[in-house]
Amino acid sequence: MSYTNQAFSGAPRERDGTWVKEIELTRSSPGGRSSELKTHLNEEASKRVGVIGSGDFGRALAGRLAQAGYHPTIGSRNPEENRSLIPAGVEVSSIEIACRADIIIIAIPKGFYHTIPAHLLTDKILVDVSNRTAIRNPEPISQAEYLSSLFPNSNVVKGFNVLSAYALESGGIQGSKQVYIAGDSAESKEKVSDLVRGAGFVPVDLGALTAARTIEDIPVSVFPAWKVPFILNIILFVFLYALSFAKFQICWPLTWSETFLWELWNHIPMDNMNKTLAVHALVSLALCYLPGVIAAWVQIFRGTKYSRFPNWLDKWLKMRKQLGLLMLFAAAIHACISVAIMSPQYQGVVYGEPEEAFIPLMKGEGWGPKTLSLNNTVKIYGTEKMDWRGECFLITGVFGFGLVVILGISSLPSVTQTLSWKEFQWIQSGLGWTSLLFLCAHDMFYGWPYINGPSCGIPSSFQYALYIPGLTILLKIPLVLPPLSYYLDKIRAGYVRGSKSVSPSQA
Amino acid sequence: MSYTNQAFSGAPRERDGTWVKEIELTRSSPGGRSSELKTHLNEEASKRVGVIGSGDFGRALAGRLAQAGYHPTIGSRNPEENRSLIPAGVEVSSIEIACRADIIIIAIPKGFYHTIPAHLLTDKILVDVSNRTAIRNPEPISQAEYLSSLFPNSNVVKGFNVLSAYALESGGIQGSKQVYIAGDSAESKEKVSDLVRGAGFVPVDLGALTAARTIEDIPVSVFPAWKVPFILNIILFVFLYALSFAKFQICWPLTWSETFLWELWNHIPMDNMNKTLAVHALVSLALCYLPGVIAAWVQIFRGTKYSRFPNWLDKWLKMRKQLGLLMLFAAAIHACISVAIMSPQYQGVVYGEPEEAFIPLMKGEGWGPKTLSLNNTVKIYGTEKMDWRGECFLITGVFGFGLVVILGISSLPSVTQTLSWKEFQWIQSGLGWTSLLFLCAHDMFYGWPYINGPSCGIPSSFQYALYIPGLTILLKIPLVLPPLSYYLDKIRAGYVRGSKSVSPSQA
Amino acid sequence: MSYTNQAFSGAPRERDGTWVKEIELTRSSPGGRSSELKTHLNEEASKRVGVIGSGDFGRALAGRLAQAGYHPTIGSRNPEENRSLIPAGVEVSSIEIACRADIIIIAIPKGFYHTIPAHLLTDKILVDVSNRTAIRNPEPISQAEYLSSLFPNSNVVKGFNVLSAYALESGGIQGSKQVYIAGDSAESKEKVSDLVRGAGFVPVDLGALTAARTIEDIPVSVFPAWKVPFILNIILFVFLYALSFAKFQICWPLTWSETFLWELWNHIPMDNMNKTLAVHALVSLALCYLPGVIAAWVQIFRGTKYSRFPNWLDKWLKMRKQLGLLMLFAAAIHACISVAIMSPQYQGVVYGEPEEAFIPLMKGEGWGPKTLSLNNTVKIYGTEKMDWRGECFLITGVFGFGLVVILGISSLPSVTQTLSWKEFQWIQSGLGWTSLLFLCAHDMFYGWPYINGPSCGIPSSFQYALYIPGLTILLKIPLVLPPLSYYLDKIRAGYVRGSKSVSPSQA
Repeated sequence: MSYTNQAFSGAPRERDGTWVKEIELTRSSPGGRSSELKTHLNEEASKRVGVIGSGDFGRALAGRLAQAGYHPTIGSRNPEENRSLIPAGVEVSSIEIACRADIIIIAIPKGFYHTIPAHLLTDKILVDVSNRTAIRNPEPISQAEYLSSLFPNSNVVKGFNVLSAYALESGGIQGSKQVYIAGDSAESKEKVSDLVRGAGFVPVDLGALTAARTIEDIPVSVFPAWKVPFILNIILFVFLYALSFAKFQICWPLTWSETFLWELWNHIPMDNMNKTLAVHALVSLALCYLPGVIAAWVQIFRGTKYSRFPNWLDKWLKMRKQLGLLMLFAAAIHACISVAIMSPQYQGVVYGEPEEAFIPLMKGEGWGPKTLSLNNTVKIYGTEKMDWRGECFLITGVFGFGLVVILGISSLPSVTQTLSWKEFQWIQSGLGWTSLLFLCAHDMFYGWPYINGPSCGIPSSFQYALYIPGLTILLKIPLVLPPLSYYLDKIRAGYVRGSKSVSPSQA
Repeated sequence: MSYTNQAFSGAPRERDGTWVKEIELTRSSPGGRSSELKTHLNEEASKRVGVIGSGDFGRALAGRLAQAGYHPTIGSRNPEENRSLIPAGVEVSSIEIACRADIIIIAIPKGFYHTIPAHLLTDKILVDVSNRTAIRNPEPISQAEYLSSLFPNSNVVKGFNVLSAYALESGGIQGSKQVYIAGDSAESKEKVSDLVRGAGFVPVDLGALTAARTIEDIPVSVFPAWKVPFILNIILFVFLYALSFAKFQICWPLTWSETFLWELWNHIPMDNMNKTLAVHALVSLALCYLPGVIAAWVQIFRGTKYSRFPNWLDKWLKMRKQLGLLMLFAAAIHACISVAIMSPQYQGVVYGEPEEAFIPLMKGEGWGPKTLSLNNTVKIYGTEKMDWRGECFLITGVFGFGLVVILGISSLPSVTQTLSWKEFQWIQSGLGWTSLLFLCAHDMFYGWPYINGPSCGIPSSFQYALYIPGLTILLKIPLVLPPLSYYLDKIRAGYVRGSKSVSPSQA
Repeated sequence: MSYTNQAFSGAPRERDGTWVKEIELTRSSPGGRSSELKTHLNEEASKRVGVIGSGDFGRALAGRLAQAGYHPTIGSRNPEENRSLIPAGVEVSSIEIACRADIIIIAIPKGFYHTIPAHLLTDKILVDVSNRTAIRNPEPISQAEYLSSLFPNSNVVKGFNVLSAYALESGGIQGSKQVYIAGDSAESKEKVSDLVRGAGFVPVDLGALTAARTIEDIPVSVFPAWKVPFILNIILFVFLYALSFAKFQICWPLTWSETFLWELWNHIPMDNMNKTLAVHALVSLALCYLPGVIAAWVQIFRGTKYSRFPNWLDKWLKMRKQLGLLMLFAAAIHACISVAIMSPQYQGVVYGEPEEAFIPLMKGEGWGPKTLSLNNTVKIYGTEKMDWRGECFLITGVFGFGLVVILGISSLPSVTQTLSWKEFQWIQSGLGWTSLLFLCAHDMFYGWPYINGPSCGIPSSFQYALYIPGLTILLKIPLVLPPLSYYLDKIRAGYVRGSKSVSPSQA
């Protein structure tokens, strides 16, 4: 609290006046009353924040702090410029005056850091709010660390960079409300945390100032956790689509009469897409549960849970949520298309195949004049409802999808937070495996008549859709049956094969 | 902390006993230990809260505070009345005793404010929790300001009014957990904030006591941000429905044979509704992106981003979220109806138009007896799958809708909060424009054969559905192409046409 | 803050070194500077946390605290064991050294509590993080109370038990972020609350240490609020399914020709399920609004709102959210199946019943060779669009379902929190009743022709689906009409029949 009284040479301001008076009071007041006033004084002083830089972000942050009851002062080389843009409650003065506060927000680009007079910043808390324009690649250190190297006698804290000027002005309604901070001084971080909280955001401490490297990556990286799962999904989809294409658009026309060619090519945009999405969703769902099963087998073979999984398995385990949500998207598109086209034309196998009839037809489109032509052939569909296989196919699909939607809802952050760990497990594991079984049945109820019918050497899509789900289920079955289930429970409770001591631990 | 010991003349209570003892201890204890105990004492004292008013809200708030470890005392003129309703942990005593606490909650209607003896409230923090019954209209000041004018020597803080007695009793599970506060004393607001947090809610400071006018409007206004967008949506819908009605139910029967009249009037409830909703959703989506495009053109023409948009544009920009969610509702209803009725009967154009056949029919409904009648005419639908146009129409619709659903999910508060600003932008802008393009294609794939076919001078709905989306896309294209795209980037980075100095600012 | 300097006999550690130096400084520094350093010292000391137990949970919690800037020390009987598993930033030492911190986390099973030397824990805050393996049944007290009875000179606080080791390691991303705490010392709870917040979780104070009984039930109970509503739903579903089964699969084949038997048994998996789900959803929705109506009648008959509802009504009122969400699931499955099968085959009544035709058919499946057979009978469906009844049936269903989905979205925790109490009421009551009316109309538009046609004495499903919704609506109507509506408003504003005084209260 190195505020010195002599410094108040700025323009006479209402608020400062009050404050100076309080300082006088403090000085003259006798012992008992002094500490109480000092507290009040400190409270007032702790509300002062300096902001270096009058750009969009500096102004927006200062305005937000003013709204929240702080007294921000923007330090500017020409304080009279752009007066009209300064938000209500924000002072603009020289850089010297702005630097009197304990906390100084550095809201100028990195290239201008060196222009601030170092003596003004001694013992101050500097908040580096800067952002890079891209993921740090050639630069070895963060911009906050660079600031710290310029002003070694100041305490640099990284923070606020994840916010945008717009988010600050519109009350942080859009975008994240979490503000990551990092710094080497716990005390300084505590004060900046209070500032973050005061401004209406939630501080998340990521540790030492070197963590600023991570923090500076956040606003310039877009969905980092989604990149790999998304690419894997795209590869899987392209592969499966190519397989369908080879079969339905290339192999079938070659195998049968050429007259089918154009009719079949009609189905490139949607029907093929839909069949591919069905296989894709089922395989993706299995890929969410396969790594957990593999991890269990690794633990069993190693005889302990106290060993790191191989790197690929670790990464796979961590991307299950993303894989699951991408699966949900694919499944939703498939569901939407499928319920739209559900009809004897498309699902003949479960409605009854069409029969051909010779009937006299009135030719002509719409309501216009028509000519009579005898003995035309028309395909007439069985006009019955679905048979039992169709009904089982539809109900397993709808229920399986319903469970997957519940899984998706449970991974909404606000829902996840209301679930206890055991409940979250129950949903993700219990409902997830159930939906996998349902959706495998959905595949089989429909595809059983075709399952062993390869075309041009490509197996039926109903068959290859089951390869990975089948593997996953086969690997899982021994794990839920004794004796392996007992052994796995023991390992997960802390048992180590070959070790004698069992340390008391909470599961 | 003006608690005086002599005041303890109330009924002997367990907790007070302890406390008095501690005060004694404090007095007799020597220097070093004194401050530690004083802290403890202050802590205990800060837990005491007075509540004036034993109505539903007063009791519920007191009960909640008691649960959270505070010691609330309800002050009542006849403390013995309604004893059975007082929650556990809450004291009931005279108003004098309740007013000994530093923080006093005024939970009586505005009309009774003047009945509280002013001397009891001097230097206290008064929390005005009252609500009006309707939006403040004739009244120039808020109820909290009125309270403050009655007791000028007290610090009035507005707060807790957004909660209901029920929400307090049921643990705030339902309704908002945010409690807005306002007041002229920062220190008092800090203490009330602590109280709010202690009671399990999140305080949001809106500034000086005049902000109580806004705060008192909150509980009596229902969806203020939704009113204008909702009305606009209704007007748009009614207009579009009337247009369809004029065409399908009035123009068509007049144009063709009158026998169609009743058949066409069958489609007033759903088919027309569905067609209208389709146009409505597409136009609404465009209306979400049009204001952003106009704003960019305004910035380009003005040569700066440092100027306020016209009021109507500002309001339009701020209602985009609501417009988008209403669009999602319309689109969801349209999607639901459409997948239900997707069939050759309804989408003949993409399945093949029906042909008429003369066939001998067994007449009679259901399974009852039938008579044979020769040479009846039946329309027989092409029994093929959709053609390529139908497939493109369906897949663009499903994908466009899927993206709009993702937009909707990303605007759930808890999801928004996990997104960085750049990610939020990417979803709202990238996915949003993509879905707009998809849904325009959805319209055109289906409607192309009819697009230039007006009836009674009304253009095809497939055509007028594209007017505003088309305009939006046309205005957007130059903005994403050089040289305007570069110029816009420059302006958004802080460039001002005609200005020489470029102030260092963070974009 | 009973840290004594002499205690530093552990291995020389970097951080301790600094700290010891600071203590020296404090001692030698003159008055003014002393208090400032003391604050710093206290801050540092408050960052020290002892952890007894090196099991999964102890290690994970220590690691999390280290990440968050605390200095956790795990106390272990053999500190050298399992070194490799200790997270970065966590010290391992003897139990004596770990117990020097003010806050000591007891992360060993209950059976080992008595092995900790009591003298080390005097005046310390002990955090009991233990969990039971099942709902406490024979045990009269919680594990935290047992700990407190062993160490009466320590302050025991229950906490952290709702977290899992996995959640702590993965940053609490999954599962709840709320940590319930309980304890008899407010000061100790405050410190543990700070620790919880520091570790990135949200502390929720449930009161005295006896509340630990509740807290220990949380992680071992799975969806306690869902159990009863779920069982009620299952019972309702089984009853309704059995009713359909009796009618369609037993009564119909007996009534008509036996040839129908197998065809009708085809519809056990889906068609029956779908009809049952439709009735189930409508009845469930009514069951959400019936208790509120009954409660209003109880208030009217008693002439006051100040009396507890009977226990069954209270429980019913509290499970409305769960009943509503289960209804939404049933309705969603019904909607999904229904839009899939919507076609003349399934909804003949609204499309026109089929006619039978004699037509010459080419027999044979698929594209293979066929034989001509004359005079076969084929059912030919009316190929028109739906009639007005069908359209009304579909649109009321879709709109009713749309409103129920909005109800579901509004009960997502993060959405609920953005709603004011009045808005939440408006949605739950206004939209809810509207959807109930829509869905009753949905039932009647379709089922009117069949509504009075019992089979084997079982009334039409369209009829019995309306019993409870009809009752609910009939009971509601008088409540919204004068004079009862005025009387109810008066009662809800605090009026008590027969009482003369009206206490000033906030509604």
